[in-house]
Amino acid sequence: MSERIPLEKKILSENDRLAKEARDEFSNHSVVALNLVSSPGAGKTSLLERTLPALGNDIRIGLIAGDVQTENDATRLIKAGGGEMVWPVVTGGACHLDARMIMRVLKDVDLDRLDLLFIENVGNLVCPSSFDLGELMKVVLISTTEGDDKPLKYPAMFRRSGLMVVNKTDLLGTSDFSMQRVVGNARSINPDLEVIETSCRTGVGLDKWEDWLRGLLASGQ
Amino acid sequence: MSERIPLEKKILSENDRLAKEARDEFSNHSVVALNLVSSPGAGKTSLLERTLPALGNDIRIGLIAGDVQTENDATRLIKAGGGEMVWPVVTGGACHLDARMIMRVLKDVDLDRLDLLFIENVGNLVCPSSFDLGELMKVVLISTTEGDDKPLKYPAMFRRSGLMVVNKTDLLGTSDFSMQRVVGNARSINPDLEVIETSCRTGVGLDKWEDWLRGLLASGQ
Repeated sequence: MSERIPLEKKILSENDRLAKEARDEFSNHSVVALNLVSSPGAGKTSLLERTLPALGNDIRIGLIAGDVQTENDATRLIKAGGGEMVWPVVTGGACHLDARMIMRVLKDVDLDRLDLLFIENVGNLVCPSSFDLGELMKVVLISTTEGDDKPLKYPAMFRRSGLMVVNKTDLLGTSDFSMQRVVGNARSINPDLEVIETSCRTGVGLDKWEDWLRGLLASGQ
Repeated sequence: MSERIPLEKKILSENDRLAKEARDEFSNHSVVALNLVSSPGAGKTSLLERTLPALGNDIRIGLIAGDVQTENDATRLIKAGGGEMVWPVVTGGACHLDARMIMRVLKDVDLDRLDLLFIENVGNLVCPSSFDLGELMKVVLISTTEGDDKPLKYPAMFRRSGLMVVNKTDLLGTSDFSMQRVVGNARSINPDLEVIETSCRTGVGLDKWEDWLRGLLASGQ
């Protein structure tokens, strides 16, 4: 399988070309696009469910909800206030979203009606790290129940993200997870990584996440 | 990228050929090999840390510990009693173990000294489902903090597993995770899936897991 590496390079270079098209689209329409990545069940959809009612009145939010199978997340986001601004992408087995899928969805999206676009990736800490979707930034979620060693074990994802949201802080103390260790491990990979602690269950810390999003939009994108 | 699908087929067919070699090796030496798969942080290493002292006196256990980066899991398993019978595999970015990696490790393994071989895969609910490692069975772990919809969202993994271990039962009640729903969802994908509930933290249910392993070994492999 000597052609495997060159083919991977070819796929990634084709992806980069399409990601640039997506990035230009976002830029031309002054849309901030964020690529949300995490393990399965870390709380990407829950975070977005909480974000929509908090910010949806003054920020025009769109959501692309990627899943290997089912449109469950999209359905949850529509109910949470996303309405017609939610676009599901079922990858049908593929372990990540790619820029081609995003460009296909963008045909149905009027970017002039959006300020902020969340792209919720497939739950997977490995493969989505390799595929640029044209986003301004990757936001990686990690939950306190996953263990504080995960940044060391899945370094590419933490290296390529601008913000780490540590979710499920209400469950701190139920394991030996240490906030200090997870932040130390993540910043040993990526010293510039910003960190916000949240509990989507209790709501603690969501104000900081919302302020961060407002700041990002206000900074002129 | 029209050649992508044929190449994937070629890679998988080459993997199947090597997996058959591994399977024959296990069979010739009467070794039961189990392929442990899950999301990152579901508790694969913790389960093995508990299993080694419980069964290690009368069953000869070997462990192949796969990780994208770091040998942390292997180090934990060596300390837990695995000793020289632990072989780390660092995939260096790859999102799954494949049969070639297993065959490479097996050169260093005297299978006559083993009854049971655990292969701890990379934490990833998608990609490892496609790669046969020559195992007798895949065992999928899911933790109660990940949400009970995961079997529907990552169906291939649950379809191709023989046993689902639902771990972190000590955290039941901290979210809306329902044991009934997760089992229902999993069996809607795979009606024959066996289920064992465990908490590696409290030890509850580990006796059932150990009995299941003893039964598997006693059944003549």
